[in-house]
Amino acid sequence: MDELRAAFPIFERLAYLNAGTSGPVPRAAVEVVSRELATDADVGRGDKAYFEGRVIGRLDALRERVAPLLGCAPGELALTDSTTGGVNTVVSALDLGPGDEVLTSDEEHPGVLAPLGVGRARRGFAVRTVPFGELPGEVGPRTKLVAASHVSWVTGRILDVAPIDVPVLLDGAQGIGAIDVDVGSLGCDFYAASGQKWLCGPLGLGYLYVRPDQIAELTPSHAGYGTLADPEDPLALNMHEDARRFDTGLVPPHHAAWALAALDLLAADGIESVYERAASLADGFAGALAERGLEVAPRGRSTLVAWRSPDPEADVATLREQDVVLRYIPGRPYVRASIGAWNSEEELERLLSLVA
Amino acid sequence: MDELRAAFPIFERLAYLNAGTSGPVPRAAVEVVSRELATDADVGRGDKAYFEGRVIGRLDALRERVAPLLGCAPGELALTDSTTGGVNTVVSALDLGPGDEVLTSDEEHPGVLAPLGVGRARRGFAVRTVPFGELPGEVGPRTKLVAASHVSWVTGRILDVAPIDVPVLLDGAQGIGAIDVDVGSLGCDFYAASGQKWLCGPLGLGYLYVRPDQIAELTPSHAGYGTLADPEDPLALNMHEDARRFDTGLVPPHHAAWALAALDLLAADGIESVYERAASLADGFAGALAERGLEVAPRGRSTLVAWRSPDPEADVATLREQDVVLRYIPGRPYVRASIGAWNSEEELERLLSLVA
Repeated sequence: MDELRAAFPIFERLAYLNAGTSGPVPRAAVEVVSRELATDADVGRGDKAYFEGRVIGRLDALRERVAPLLGCAPGELALTDSTTGGVNTVVSALDLGPGDEVLTSDEEHPGVLAPLGVGRARRGFAVRTVPFGELPGEVGPRTKLVAASHVSWVTGRILDVAPIDVPVLLDGAQGIGAIDVDVGSLGCDFYAASGQKWLCGPLGLGYLYVRPDQIAELTPSHAGYGTLADPEDPLALNMHEDARRFDTGLVPPHHAAWALAALDLLAADGIESVYERAASLADGFAGALAERGLEVAPRGRSTLVAWRSPDPEADVATLREQDVVLRYIPGRPYVRASIGAWNSEEELERLLSLVA
Repeated sequence: MDELRAAFPIFERLAYLNAGTSGPVPRAAVEVVSRELATDADVGRGDKAYFEGRVIGRLDALRERVAPLLGCAPGELALTDSTTGGVNTVVSALDLGPGDEVLTSDEEHPGVLAPLGVGRARRGFAVRTVPFGELPGEVGPRTKLVAASHVSWVTGRILDVAPIDVPVLLDGAQGIGAIDVDVGSLGCDFYAASGQKWLCGPLGLGYLYVRPDQIAELTPSHAGYGTLADPEDPLALNMHEDARRFDTGLVPPHHAAWALAALDLLAADGIESVYERAASLADGFAGALAERGLEVAPRGRSTLVAWRSPDPEADVATLREQDVVLRYIPGRPYVRASIGAWNSEEELERLLSLVA
């Protein structure tokens, strides 16, 4: 993993432990984006070679590379602008109205809650919030959708999806690239994920898995050139029969190239070794915190470790001055570290000595 | 304008006449994006300095710089991902259903028609298509919205908005940065525009003007962190009271910096001189085509010039081989040149000699 770590210039300067917000940016991404934009500037963005080769061609490449990380087929993966965008796409496509209930948890990100909030305000369905750990048992006769985190951004706990027998939309922002995700064995209908966190890609790129039976059934609320199989008669709305019908806009080629370059790095020694190293570093760090008497939030085998602090905001600011970057979640009593395969034992020990 | 032209490397290689699809990319954009990403790679995207300074701070700067190009206030301008995104935002926010009609024209882009197509399919309103030039006279008692181009992407004609007395959504993809736009004197309710065309910015950035009375009345169908005034309780849906409630995601700082660098170039000698030079070049070119006996499509004083050809697709391919980049519109009998202030008389004369 030394090679992986060396691919990120930030580790020469900082103990960066906030991939759960935004992943570190690899040197290769800076280089490939500079080359892509130089090409844009030299030969333009207005001919067939640009659209068919650099734009559309890369969308296919992205789907092929990212789908295996979720255990799905490329045709089941839409390209979105963010996890939030994916959640909006799903919630606004579903037939939900008065008398229906969406069940969510008390550890959700605005990327889940804001889409549910507008849906409730505009369409009159109910939203019921229950403790994250109790979610599976709370599904009731009016529950038409469970919308919740796969991995809680607050604590790092992992949702037990198996007992849920209604449609499930997972916020996979802390799942994709962080832990081994298999949408088939999870049994979820939708998995909305980020490109800029654990996959180290650009802000503005996300991924959305949609189960094939849902693809066939749903018409998204938004549409554009890329969602149409026949863009010459857009009013007729001949949409793609696969997940492309849920795509958001077109991914700029420099962003696709950045995402692909970062995926190359993560795949170099096998993505499983990335998951395993991150999880064992995180487990070790959580254990060491507990040994020193800190109260670690209940967590699963994820890449997030949160511990209680009387003043998380002040702790984060103080640590930032010591060249350690992590975060707190507003309104929660925790400081949160995001631990990736790129982190070193040394920087985690330094963090430990600073907080314990 | 020699300095403006010299800012774009492409003109050393090609007669680039397709800003109506994607604008030329200035050298300054390549440089500023490379610097921005080097900063991302060096100090990360995960602390307060990144979010408050480089992300949120730039959003305000963009709104302040772009709003004057539409004659609106910064608080009336939402940041979207594209013109299509803006149209989707408006159409999905409006209360339209069975018995209502949206009036559109026969010269619309998929960015208008696809959102109307999904709206019709999902919500049961009618879409009536009439000839572009006859649109104002066709407004009827069931017409709840006119959704059409400000400047037709097919011909370069300009819509006469004044006689229309129902809500108007303009597709301003060929308006913003190309001609002097004033949403107040146009009297439109919504103006959806592109960042990557006449403003020479990145693919993935657009702008949406929303008239203040509509902002107050409408709840968008999608929401996220950036649309909320109080993101700590997203379900309560305390949205921004200005156009930020219609924002799409967060603009990555390197894209904002690119857009701002391009705006600096366009503003260097006053944006009015950019409009004036482009229009007079386009008028002159259209006149010269007509003098040589070509049939120029009826146009307004815009930056687009389209002329009839028995095989537009073949013409475009042949011209590309001669280092001239322009386009045809599928299903239309025209070759279309997009003429900007950055173009030279010499390259237009060369194009003329090739087509006449």
